[in-house]
Amino acid sequence: MKQEVKIPQATTKRLPLYYRFLKNFATEGKKRISSQELSDAMKIDSATIRRDFSYFGALGKKGYGYDVQYLLEFFRQTLDQDEVMNVALIGVGNLGNGLLKYNFQKNHNTRIVVAFDSKAPMEGTTISDIPVFHPDRLEEMYKEFGAELAILTVSSRSAQMMTDRLVKINAKGILNFTPVRLSVPDTIKVMNIDLSVELQALTYLVRNSGK
Amino acid sequence: MKQEVKIPQATTKRLPLYYRFLKNFATEGKKRISSQELSDAMKIDSATIRRDFSYFGALGKKGYGYDVQYLLEFFRQTLDQDEVMNVALIGVGNLGNGLLKYNFQKNHNTRIVVAFDSKAPMEGTTISDIPVFHPDRLEEMYKEFGAELAILTVSSRSAQMMTDRLVKINAKGILNFTPVRLSVPDTIKVMNIDLSVELQALTYLVRNSGK
Repeated sequence: MKQEVKIPQATTKRLPLYYRFLKNFATEGKKRISSQELSDAMKIDSATIRRDFSYFGALGKKGYGYDVQYLLEFFRQTLDQDEVMNVALIGVGNLGNGLLKYNFQKNHNTRIVVAFDSKAPMEGTTISDIPVFHPDRLEEMYKEFGAELAILTVSSRSAQMMTDRLVKINAKGILNFTPVRLSVPDTIKVMNIDLSVELQALTYLVRNSGK
Repeated sequence: MKQEVKIPQATTKRLPLYYRFLKNFATEGKKRISSQELSDAMKIDSATIRRDFSYFGALGKKGYGYDVQYLLEFFRQTLDQDEVMNVALIGVGNLGNGLLKYNFQKNHNTRIVVAFDSKAPMEGTTISDIPVFHPDRLEEMYKEFGAELAILTVSSRSAQMMTDRLVKINAKGILNFTPVRLSVPDTIKVMNIDLSVELQALTYLVRNSGK
């Protein structure tokens, strides 16, 4: 049940959230749910929810709402929650180290299986049971550990060079924590998380509220 | 030069990016820049850039482009880059510990000055030179260290309770790393960064590309 439709990236980002909230509602024994109830729980306005759902075809009926089990199964399949995707983390500095130990415990379908850091010895070491190798062994170990995605937590200086190497070994996606806007071909997907930008944007919102 | 205009949150998030790229262009000695040049450098489409800039009034002229120094000064003042905002980090687990050590070194106007963790002793300890106290002392120390924003990296279970305490002491904003959608009054701004959701969304994009 792969989707043919092109959905906006903002909608894509909400899919895992919808899935999580629907799981909660299902656990509570709820059978039907309205876009307003989802809206109240998720703090996303109900028009956005209805628009998002419309990308996947008519999933609900007016006055009836949405069938929780049907939606849940739909999102589970859409998100391929059953299939595991292996992740390589590149750059075990302060942030990388935190992410490595954190390792997305709540995600059952993605896990960091290998990491790379220029301070690691060639033969490798382990942090929180995850093997960490010198970046000279990136190409070899990325394949050996069956990694498909990479988390990039290197310095800005190394970001594009590491990306070019990832492109060459056909990495499928990069979660980019560096402030660099990476140049990549269409064959690789990039999601940017710039923590400094988020914090600055929050600062801006706080300073300009209630004026 | 505070702005009266209500700008969308997506635009807000791009402001620090514009600022950073304009600084780079200024450093390179560039005096004028077109929305297309900014677009190429930032990988944001030029229509979006022109729309974003339009929220702040007419900042550029067709065929001329934008004056780099003028824009830079404008964004600097808009983002209040000169004023420091103190941040408290709540929850020094794996992710919190990483963020504490990372401490947004590239941001000159925000810094973590105090942290709280239930494993910290009442009298406090330090991690990377930042004092860490038991959460029982949140109200006291949040004020003593002049914190205005909070980074929330506690467990889901504690997230809303900590938020309620932050609301009571008039915290101005929360950078929420927990998957919980927090209930807050209008007086406090919340930015959500759900790393698992970002990773899942990337997984989804990768699986559904080129089909």
